[in-house]
Amino acid sequence: MNVYGLATPAVLIDRPRALRNIDRMQAAADARGVRLRPHTKTHKSPMVARWQIERGAIGICCAKLGEAEVFAASGFDDIRLPYPINPANADRVIALLDRTRLSFSIDHPVVAKQWSDVMVRAGKRVELLVKIDVGFHRCGLDPDARDTVATIREIAGLPGLDFRGLLSHAGQTYHAHSEDELRLMAEAEVRTMSDLAAWCRAKGLAVDEISLGATPPARFSLHHEGFTEYRPGNYAYFDRTQVALGAATLDDCALTVLARVVSKPAANRIILDSGSKTLTNDGARGFTPAPGYGIILRDGHPDQTLLIERLSEEHATVTATTGTTPLEPGDCVRIIPNHSCVVSNLVDQAWLVDGDSVEPLPIAARGRIT
Amino acid sequence: MNVYGLATPAVLIDRPRALRNIDRMQAAADARGVRLRPHTKTHKSPMVARWQIERGAIGICCAKLGEAEVFAASGFDDIRLPYPINPANADRVIALLDRTRLSFSIDHPVVAKQWSDVMVRAGKRVELLVKIDVGFHRCGLDPDARDTVATIREIAGLPGLDFRGLLSHAGQTYHAHSEDELRLMAEAEVRTMSDLAAWCRAKGLAVDEISLGATPPARFSLHHEGFTEYRPGNYAYFDRTQVALGAATLDDCALTVLARVVSKPAANRIILDSGSKTLTNDGARGFTPAPGYGIILRDGHPDQTLLIERLSEEHATVTATTGTTPLEPGDCVRIIPNHSCVVSNLVDQAWLVDGDSVEPLPIAARGRIT
Repeated sequence: MNVYGLATPAVLIDRPRALRNIDRMQAAADARGVRLRPHTKTHKSPMVARWQIERGAIGICCAKLGEAEVFAASGFDDIRLPYPINPANADRVIALLDRTRLSFSIDHPVVAKQWSDVMVRAGKRVELLVKIDVGFHRCGLDPDARDTVATIREIAGLPGLDFRGLLSHAGQTYHAHSEDELRLMAEAEVRTMSDLAAWCRAKGLAVDEISLGATPPARFSLHHEGFTEYRPGNYAYFDRTQVALGAATLDDCALTVLARVVSKPAANRIILDSGSKTLTNDGARGFTPAPGYGIILRDGHPDQTLLIERLSEEHATVTATTGTTPLEPGDCVRIIPNHSCVVSNLVDQAWLVDGDSVEPLPIAARGRIT
Repeated sequence: MNVYGLATPAVLIDRPRALRNIDRMQAAADARGVRLRPHTKTHKSPMVARWQIERGAIGICCAKLGEAEVFAASGFDDIRLPYPINPANADRVIALLDRTRLSFSIDHPVVAKQWSDVMVRAGKRVELLVKIDVGFHRCGLDPDARDTVATIREIAGLPGLDFRGLLSHAGQTYHAHSEDELRLMAEAEVRTMSDLAAWCRAKGLAVDEISLGATPPARFSLHHEGFTEYRPGNYAYFDRTQVALGAATLDDCALTVLARVVSKPAANRIILDSGSKTLTNDGARGFTPAPGYGIILRDGHPDQTLLIERLSEEHATVTATTGTTPLEPGDCVRIIPNHSCVVSNLVDQAWLVDGDSVEPLPIAARGRIT
C-alpha cells in the first residue's frame, strides 16, 4: 500500500527517522553515562516505547495515570509520572503498584502527607521524586526559597514514601529567544538541580536520582555533569517547534500529516482537509516564530510559499503568498505540524511508513486524560 | 454517583441546559417555518442528536464522512455534510448511500464533474448543494463573481447529481466586533443567499433549498425570510465564545470541564489537571476578547479573579489576580471552555449530569477526522 491510498487526513510516522532520533538521543545519554527515560507523551504508543527500551532506555515516563495503565498493561515495568498525582486517585495508584514499578512527583507537603497516609493504610510503599521549579513556574518547589530543603526532608521522611530524589522540567526552554538563551537555561537547570541535591545531601538526605528532561535543552544538558536521568519526549518525532529551537532539522521530523486539497475557491487559496482536529491550534514557537500552523511539504520539500493561515476544525485555509499555486482539489501534501505530541493525541491510529511499506500504528494511550 | 466522585478532568454535560437550548432553537426555527438541521460537530453523540430529532429537527449535519458513518450506523437516515467531500472517498460515499439519505456540498466544477462520473459509473445518484462564500473566505463560490450562476447551472446539470440548492456558513460572525456588526453580517448572508437563489431561478434553475447555519447569527437570521433550512451546531452546548458573542448567557452553557487542583506552588498560583488535551489551545473570541482558556466556576459561579493563563498538555496554570486563592490541592472547579465542540472531540466519553444523576455519555463520533 502507498500512503496516497490512505483516507485523509492521516498521521504518518517515518520509521527510519524515528529510529534514528531514538538512537541519537540514546547515544548522547550513554556517552554521558546518564540514564535515559523517554516521556511517551509524544507517541503514546507501546510499540515506539519498546524501540526506546530495546535501544537502552531504562524505563518510561507517562503524563497521567491513564497512560500508565495502558503501558503497564502492555508489559512496561518501570513507569515514572513526572506529574503531581493527586490522592483522589489513590485506588488506581495502588492497583498499578501491583503491576509495575511506579514513581511520581510531589511538590506539596500536604499532598505528600495524604499519600503517606494512603500508603500506610494500604500497607504499600511508593517511590517519589520532589519536583523543583527551575524557571518554568508551573509546578515545583522554589529552589531558592529558604525552607525548600526542609520541605524536601519533611516529605522524604514520611512513612510509606520512598524518596528517590529530585526532578525538574525546563519548560521555559520552549520560550527561549536564541540559542545562547536556551544554552544558559539548560546550564542553569543542571546547576540548580545539582546544587540543591548537594544541599540536601549536606543535610543528611540520600538523593539517589536527579532527573531532568526536555527535548530543546538536551543537546546542551547532556554535556554536563550533575544529574542521573534525562526524560525527553518530543525527540522521537520532533516537529516544527523543535526545528525553530535548533533541536532538530526538517529531515529529522518523523511525524507528518498527510492532507488533501478539498477546495480551491481562488487562485491563491486552497483548503486542506486537516483542521484543528488534526493539527491543533498550537501556535509556532522558536527563536523567530513563523506564522501558520505547520510547514507544507510538496514532494518531500518545504514549500515556503504556502502559508497555513487559519484552521477551522476540519479545514486548513492555505494562502499562496506568491498569488498562485499549482495545487488542485484531490492533490495531497504532507505537513510538519507545529507540535507533534498533540497530533498523536488526536487519532486512534497513525501509519508507520518505511519506504513503500505502510502499516497501522495504534496510539493505544491516546486521550487518557485522567 | 456525584460528579465529585469522577476521575478528573471530566467533561460534564448538563442535561436540562442542553435540552433547553435545543428546545429554544427548535422553537425559533419553527416560528419562522424554517427546517432545523443541527450540526452534530458539537456533541458528536447519537444520543444528543436523537434529542434534536425528537424535538423537530429534520435531519442532521456531520463534518466528515467518518462522522456520517457513525450516525448512519446509529440509524440516522438524513445526513448532510456541509463539506467539500473529495471523490477520493467515492467508495465510502457509495456505501453510505445504501444506508442513509446523504447530501454534501460542492464548490468546484472539476470536483463536481468527478463526482458525476463516479455516480454514473456506480449507477447511483447523490444530492448536493453548491457552497457559497458569504464572507468567511474559506470554501465556496464567490456570489458576486460574474460566472457564479453559470457555474451553479453547470454543476446542477451534471448526470448522477441531484442539485438541491445553495448552502452557506457565516463563519465570519465569530470575528464580529459588536452586536451591530454581527447583525449586519447575519442580514447580509440572508440577502446574499436569497438574491443568488432568485438569480438562479431566473435562469431556469430549480433551487429547492437555501441552507444557512451558524450559532452566533441565528438570533438575527431566524427573523428573516429568504431561506429554507438552518444548521447551527454549537447552540446545543454553547461556550464562553458564544457568551462573548451575545448568543448565550453563562447559564446556558451546558458543557463544563470538571478539573482538580493538583498543585499550589505559590499563594497566587494553582495548577489544574485540565490542560490543552482537555480544553484545547483555542483562544477566546467575542466582542471584547477576554484572556485565558475558559471561565472557572466555583460552586456554580464564575470566579473572575482566577485566570487560566497558560495551558500545557496536562496542566492549566491558573493565576489568582488578587494575589491569593483559597483553592488547595484536591479541590475541584468547573470550567466553561472557550470552545465546546473541540472539547467533545478529545474524550471518548462525557458525563451527562441532571441534578444528582450522573450517567456516561459516549461520544461515538469523536476523532472521525476522515
